[in-house]
Amino acid sequence: MLNTYLIIIGDEILTGRTQDTNSHYIASRLNELGIAPKSIITISDDKTIIENTISDILEPADIVFVTGGLGPTPDDLTVISVANVLKRRLVLDESIINRIEKIFTSQKLPVPELATKQALIPQGAITLDNPVGHAPGLILKQGKKSLILLPGVPVEMQKIFETGVLPYLNDTYALKPDFILFLRTTNIPEMAIVEKISDVLKKYKNIRTAYLPSILGVDIRISGIKDKKIYLALEKELNIRLIQYIYGKGQETIGEIIGNLCRKKRLTLGIAESCTGGLIADKITDIPGSSEYFIGGAVVYSNKLKKLLACVKESTLKRFGAVSKETVLEMAQGIREHFNTDIGVGISGIAGPAGATEKKPVGLVYIAVGTKKETISEEHRFTGNRRMIKEKSAMAALDLLRRTIQKL
Amino acid sequence: MLNTYLIIIGDEILTGRTQDTNSHYIASRLNELGIAPKSIITISDDKTIIENTISDILEPADIVFVTGGLGPTPDDLTVISVANVLKRRLVLDESIINRIEKIFTSQKLPVPELATKQALIPQGAITLDNPVGHAPGLILKQGKKSLILLPGVPVEMQKIFETGVLPYLNDTYALKPDFILFLRTTNIPEMAIVEKISDVLKKYKNIRTAYLPSILGVDIRISGIKDKKIYLALEKELNIRLIQYIYGKGQETIGEIIGNLCRKKRLTLGIAESCTGGLIADKITDIPGSSEYFIGGAVVYSNKLKKLLACVKESTLKRFGAVSKETVLEMAQGIREHFNTDIGVGISGIAGPAGATEKKPVGLVYIAVGTKKETISEEHRFTGNRRMIKEKSAMAALDLLRRTIQKL
Repeated sequence: MLNTYLIIIGDEILTGRTQDTNSHYIASRLNELGIAPKSIITISDDKTIIENTISDILEPADIVFVTGGLGPTPDDLTVISVANVLKRRLVLDESIINRIEKIFTSQKLPVPELATKQALIPQGAITLDNPVGHAPGLILKQGKKSLILLPGVPVEMQKIFETGVLPYLNDTYALKPDFILFLRTTNIPEMAIVEKISDVLKKYKNIRTAYLPSILGVDIRISGIKDKKIYLALEKELNIRLIQYIYGKGQETIGEIIGNLCRKKRLTLGIAESCTGGLIADKITDIPGSSEYFIGGAVVYSNKLKKLLACVKESTLKRFGAVSKETVLEMAQGIREHFNTDIGVGISGIAGPAGATEKKPVGLVYIAVGTKKETISEEHRFTGNRRMIKEKSAMAALDLLRRTIQKL
Repeated sequence: MLNTYLIIIGDEILTGRTQDTNSHYIASRLNELGIAPKSIITISDDKTIIENTISDILEPADIVFVTGGLGPTPDDLTVISVANVLKRRLVLDESIINRIEKIFTSQKLPVPELATKQALIPQGAITLDNPVGHAPGLILKQGKKSLILLPGVPVEMQKIFETGVLPYLNDTYALKPDFILFLRTTNIPEMAIVEKISDVLKKYKNIRTAYLPSILGVDIRISGIKDKKIYLALEKELNIRLIQYIYGKGQETIGEIIGNLCRKKRLTLGIAESCTGGLIADKITDIPGSSEYFIGGAVVYSNKLKKLLACVKESTLKRFGAVSKETVLEMAQGIREHFNTDIGVGISGIAGPAGATEKKPVGLVYIAVGTKKETISEEHRFTGNRRMIKEKSAMAALDLLRRTIQKL
């Protein structure tokens, strides 16, 4: 694999004023070509530091990307530093000057003197057109190594990357994308996944597995697969091991998956939420066109509304409490009948930090999904702060909904 | 100044799967203490690379932060690498094991074998409690140098940074933040803020102003204030200039602000949402104890539910359409009466990408807030994708609600 490095230049990033998004963008695009950078290094707008960093990294590198510091102001030091490291003279590129003059003239503005500095580039540099800004991208070839300089402004960097860098990488290094298997799981901790699948993974040579845990679950990303057959075989084996935990593949969200299922099976949804406070409806309505299957939701935060909208019996609330299996079972069927939908969802729990009792701790959540035929419920005990419990509860409810619809 | 470095460990970042936000968070917080890291280095989950990087950086450093690779799975290699570099033995920390066992037992899950690995830490490490996850933070003192290890999951990293790292930095290096004035505005663009307040800012020496725009509005962060009196004088002047746009101070969310107002004025709320799909209720119920004032919400996605729950007249829907001033006015009063609350909120709009007509483009949103005395409405035209329009709509509704309650 090609040794690739990213150097991000900018005081604004080190001082926390700006979130660097360029390295993420470049890493994502390189990943599709089967390249992962060895490291990403963010440094200050300081000539000595820039020169030392580039000089150190150029030795083991095949390709080095540098973003930032390409502008014409005194704190833009990338071009001069690179020229020093590569021992090249700066030369005036007439085409750059002409382009900048054209931009200013078309805006009826005087051409600033700094435009000349913008046109000074190291001798032998290949220029990459910047259609959305002043500073062009630059590629410097040093033997078989490539040093690729891009502006720090994300929209300019991205444009040049797409129109100039990708064709260059294709021409120069003939890069081909690997297969990547991406599985999304929920309701199972990372450690349990590892125990369930590590013997399968061992059988496949040269693959790399990453576990990406979030509040909602653990995504499994397997890269380094060179062959479609191997991809399919591995996918099949993992699907068998993790059948009830895998809710999606690739970038699909649980909301999209439920949307697709509802459309395919022509089902309508109604939701009665207490502890999630609208979050389930929010996730469902993030999907364009969700009004086709989502009739509506009731955020029944008070017991009054649990009775009024979700048709929970007073006697059930008195006997079992608002946070109980019995209450969510009635909520799921009650909302289904009230809203006249195919499927009803009910959820009630203790999001905390207050509201817990000895028998009902913070994080205790009951979920129910009801269809015309049956109603099933689950009990969960989640940890974390209030928001995390809401997020985990919504995810668990949506996943129970997914599993229920898949069986229909 | 203290020589500080950040090392971010994680293949998921180098492969472009995950946008690193931890370095930005840490850099921002360090900036408040007057520190800018010398560099931020992102590297792979590879033992040799981790060891070499830490070893190289530890030499010039006073403080090194390392995030990621603290979990118990085989790709988590930070702890063992640090132990090797510092030539320390790994020891079993009983308190970590006990904590993890407690979490699993409370969730009625078997304790996985890997839990033991989570409890192995380098001898002499200070552990920092992780209230929202398994892996504790660790601090290793080596002479006067500090090596601070934090988990890669942002919510865990942040929690430990606030509760464990900041007090440690204060105790060990006497680092304390300046006064920081943080004002949150909405419904006004960044450039208009600059025009309104730049002459005020010029009068104050040595202050640094940052404008932090987000989908929800623009936060103004002013640092470098050395004195409480100056802080109060500046705050007063800015409040006068931006009176109707400032909704909060510090880290307060609009949900918290509304919660405090409702509690203080003993008011109850009911909400009928269409285009926001539950997001307003979600934001309100993120606040602990919101059940005191939030009676409930109705996500009236279909016209059927707009009539059934929010008491909108069939004739209004026919004549003006679901996305109209007339409909949201009826929604606000309808939900107020149906739920028997002091205040009712109604919102309807076109979140897109579909659903637009010639007269009603994507982004057109109507909001109404009704009290016993009156009902006021606003028309907005938002830009962005579906999620952005939902977010901006929810924010605008909550801000109209805030302004309405403040007048009561």
